[in-house]
Amino acid sequence: MTRFRVAVHIVPRRGILDPQGKAVADALHALGFAAVGDVRVGRHLVLEVESDDADHAATRVRAMCDQLLANPVTEDYELAGVTPA
Amino acid sequence: MTRFRVAVHIVPRRGILDPQGKAVADALHALGFAAVGDVRVGRHLVLEVESDDADHAATRVRAMCDQLLANPVTEDYELAGVTPA
Repeated sequence: MTRFRVAVHIVPRRGILDPQGKAVADALHALGFAAVGDVRVGRHLVLEVESDDADHAATRVRAMCDQLLANPVTEDYELAGVTPA
Repeated sequence: MTRFRVAVHIVPRRGILDPQGKAVADALHALGFAAVGDVRVGRHLVLEVESDDADHAATRVRAMCDQLLANPVTEDYELAGVTPA
C-alpha cells in the first residue's frame, strides 16, 4: 500500500450563476484591477489516500466525488493530479 | 491585449487546523472510504484577465492574491496555470 495525494477541483458548472465569483470580480474592480473579467470560485481538495496504485486511488476519489464531494446538479469536478505523498 | 485564464489554488497553510477538511474526512470514513487520511480543503479560482502577455497576467493575479484573495496569515496560494482563454 502506498500513500497517494490526490488533488481535485470542484467548480460551478458553466452556465450556472456563480455569485461568489461575481462578488470577487466586483471587489477586484473596486481595488483597481480593471483587467479582470469573469471569475469562477470553486473548491480545491487534497486528499491522502492509501492505495496499491495511482489508478486505483484516482478511481476511489472519483467515487468520493460522485457520492459526497461534488453536487452533480450544479458542479463539475476534475482530478488535477495523483502523486505519491 | 489577450485574454488569459489564470487558475489559482488557495489552501490552508500546513500546520494550521483545517476543520472543513476534517469534516470531509470524517464524512468519507462514515461512507466507508477507510483508505482516506488527511483532507485539506481550499479554494480554486479561475480568473479571466486581459493582458499583453502571460507573465504580466500572472504578476497581476499574484497582486490580487496578496491584496484580496488569500489571507496571508493562514493561507498559501499558488498559480496553477496561465492559458489563453
